Amino acid sequence: MATPTGKVPAGASNAPAKGALTPRADDFPRWYQDVVARAELADNGPVRGTMVIRPWGYAIWERLQAALDRRIKEAGADNAYFPLFIPEAFLKLEAEHVEGFSPELAVVTHGGGKQLEEPVVVRPTSETVINHYFAKWVHSHRDLPLLINQWANVVRWELRPRLFLRTTEFLWQEGHTVHATEADARTYALQILADVYQDTMEQVMAVPVLTGHKTDRERFAGATRTWTCEGMMGDGKALQMGTSHELGQNFARAFDIRFSDTDGDLQYPWQTSWGVSTRLIGALIMAHGDDFGLRLPPDLAPQQAVVIVARDGDGVQRAAESLVADLSAAGVRAILDARTDTGFGRRSVDWELKGVPFRVEVGPRDLAEGTVTVVTRHRREKAPVAVGAAAAAVADGLRSVADDLRNEAEAFRQGRTVDVDDLAGALEVGATGFARLPWAAVGLEGEQQLATASLSVRCLQRPDGGLASGGPADDPESLVAVVGRSY
Amino acid sequence: MATPTGKVPAGASNAPAKGALTPRADDFPRWYQDVVARAELADNGPVRGTMVIRPWGYAIWERLQAALDRRIKEAGADNAYFPLFIPEAFLKLEAEHVEGFSPELAVVTHGGGKQLEEPVVVRPTSETVINHYFAKWVHSHRDLPLLINQWANVVRWELRPRLFLRTTEFLWQEGHTVHATEADARTYALQILADVYQDTMEQVMAVPVLTGHKTDRERFAGATRTWTCEGMMGDGKALQMGTSHELGQNFARAFDIRFSDTDGDLQYPWQTSWGVSTRLIGALIMAHGDDFGLRLPPDLAPQQAVVIVARDGDGVQRAAESLVADLSAAGVRAILDARTDTGFGRRSVDWELKGVPFRVEVGPRDLAEGTVTVVTRHRREKAPVAVGAAAAAVADGLRSVADDLRNEAEAFRQGRTVDVDDLAGALEVGATGFARLPWAAVGLEGEQQLATASLSVRCLQRPDGGLASGGPADDPESLVAVVGRSY
Repeated sequence: MATPTGKVPAGASNAPAKGALTPRADDFPRWYQDVVARAELADNGPVRGTMVIRPWGYAIWERLQAALDRRIKEAGADNAYFPLFIPEAFLKLEAEHVEGFSPELAVVTHGGGKQLEEPVVVRPTSETVINHYFAKWVHSHRDLPLLINQWANVVRWELRPRLFLRTTEFLWQEGHTVHATEADARTYALQILADVYQDTMEQVMAVPVLTGHKTDRERFAGATRTWTCEGMMGDGKALQMGTSHELGQNFARAFDIRFSDTDGDLQYPWQTSWGVSTRLIGALIMAHGDDFGLRLPPDLAPQQAVVIVARDGDGVQRAAESLVADLSAAGVRAILDARTDTGFGRRSVDWELKGVPFRVEVGPRDLAEGTVTVVTRHRREKAPVAVGAAAAAVADGLRSVADDLRNEAEAFRQGRTVDVDDLAGALEVGATGFARLPWAAVGLEGEQQLATASLSVRCLQRPDGGLASGGPADDPESLVAVVGRSY
Repeated sequence: MATPTGKVPAGASNAPAKGALTPRADDFPRWYQDVVARAELADNGPVRGTMVIRPWGYAIWERLQAALDRRIKEAGADNAYFPLFIPEAFLKLEAEHVEGFSPELAVVTHGGGKQLEEPVVVRPTSETVINHYFAKWVHSHRDLPLLINQWANVVRWELRPRLFLRTTEFLWQEGHTVHATEADARTYALQILADVYQDTMEQVMAVPVLTGHKTDRERFAGATRTWTCEGMMGDGKALQMGTSHELGQNFARAFDIRFSDTDGDLQYPWQTSWGVSTRLIGALIMAHGDDFGLRLPPDLAPQQAVVIVARDGDGVQRAAESLVADLSAAGVRAILDARTDTGFGRRSVDWELKGVPFRVEVGPRDLAEGTVTVVTRHRREKAPVAVGAAAAAVADGLRSVADDLRNEAEAFRQGRTVDVDDLAGALEVGATGFARLPWAAVGLEGEQQLATASLSVRCLQRPDGGLASGGPADDPESLVAVVGRSY
């Protein structure tokens, strides 16, 4: 959130009054929509399927981006930027890839007042254009690994859009790398999966995820293996939160990327690509939200505490301002809400909706007794605290919020994850949670049956939940399939 | 630059060998092209006019972005994100605006495999779509000022593209604000001009700029007044580096944005918009570059120092590594280049091209005498320095680089700025620098004559160089026009 301490975000206060949120248990998708609208996270764009990310939603995204970007750089990748427009011909160079993306493309046919000789597509992902350049940049084994990341918007025409989860345009990062050996490519794809994605999701977002690889049916178009992070949302459904692909030599051959090895022989390199998007904000909402709105882990909260002047009175404003200063001094991102021309109840509800982890309510009566009320958002607990101790109480309280949220999400997931023996069991359990069963009991035909019931294999794992990343333990016959209903 | 200390950026080293840069004095545009290519800043995209920003160029942009974003947030604006695709009808709501942008639009006619019922344009700028939402968000004087910024890509079809300076797609920020009064809007437009743009350009980029307002002929399509920052490049030409527009009530009326004032009466608000783009990287190259490549101010340099192992030898590698550690400890972004399988001369030339402010060359002979060679890029000065003193020498040297660059650019500009009396003088001086003359001596007809000679009024100022921001001193008759040839 860009708003400096002590100023309420412009445009945040005066939307028309609205009723309570739809309870989650009544209608989860409707509840989700309500939260997105009322916490002022996003709005539908004027072109079907597009999205306006409002300041509160964007501030969360900026923090998430920073957490991811730091980890991506620690993994050695450099940021760069490739064009939005891709010649149609590029898309066609990798057969599976074009087949996977063709139905979703947006096509520009006119530019500068004229019909274009060759139409261009708006990137749905950038494998093709980036590999076109990799072919120019990669010459020798000394150029490898080449590790590139891009933050960008991409477009995939959506017939059933849902804000953050599935939008025609979304923001994401896409990593693209080139390695000398298949083993290096796999190691890097898995490093991104664990050290960048899973770590951000679990430590920063406080959303526990299962990791594994996709079945052939669910693989990325053009990949040889797709690794995935799957979260369980508050309705028991699965959300694919991030994927890291091994591309084998598919794109290297399609785009003629070759390097001279240490013996001087020309070789096709091995590649990866990987991405996470603004969909993660959807995950955050659905994994942690309650009937009162968003609950934000402190690292991602645009403001970690709001000091609310409940109503005007002797020294109230001054006390509130000094609390904001104390909080800032204690390293807490804090904001003052002194808009006493709006009802106190209304403002409390709004901050609760927005998921600010702590509220400090300052009123004349309490203040006369030397106290303020500290409200812990994720537990909805109120406690009177001596004025002088409030900042420390909030700073201290912030430390356990993420752990609480993660533990709660994990307990929920455990409660909805059941080991079953056969497809019938998976069909039942998977409707409201995760079913684990031997992959051998599913197979291609089983996947088809699951699809008929709107279920799918979310990932394949070792029986202990570990990644089947190679070696004799990873006989497909020994793998476990995690089945669920997905977003 | 994402590369962690001690690692050379992937793909940086093995491009085919190339000759010297075209000297600036021989062919400035060719020199510019050479620098962009050989410093690995950018490449032409596959669709005409588009651009690939390579890691070294993008790392500079990231630092520039951070400097701007910090200042934008300090000015109270919140970041948000609006859609790439805009319904054609939106563009038509503001008459001047659509006229200004129509010839440059890219139009999407097909999406998801079907022809669209209504074509959508790829945003050339976002006034229309953002104001559509402002109309929903603004209700009361309590919602104002509403201060929004967006970092995004935009598309304007370019017939004569030039990397960074004029590309079909570019990256930028665009601010959009709503104010209760015209005076507030003007104050804010000028605050952005001075505190965000001019400050970043002069303090971070070390490029001095003139500020003023545009003539009606040069105004932004839809604005009532356009304020501008104009830099002088190394060939004496002007570059419009950033603009801040007062929009009056034009868009408010077109999009029906109204607020109830303190008396409860509905009013149209007053607006601003403002933007700077990746064009600023072009400014950086052309304001500071020399015949040996880029010269970077330390705040924007992805690496501030490179420690080069000149050739292998006793303890050379160890000494170089420890120098990198010393530099990092002294707060200097430093990198190790130990690629002794590439010639030392070649590597030195490459780092010089890339504009790294300091090189520390470590070779066996010097090291035996306890010294290394410290090379100051912007002055091209070499000095032997005791190993133990090198890190401090670099840290110390970094402090004056930006001032040196700025002073040099300012002296150059002063040398090429001449006061003249009439249009004939302006036509002569403006061909290779800036001519200053009374605006009354130019006028509409004079502007037409200037245009015939590929010159233009870059901005209008008070005679003392100050902004004509209102008041009796700003009689148009008393203003000075700065005339030059522009990019």
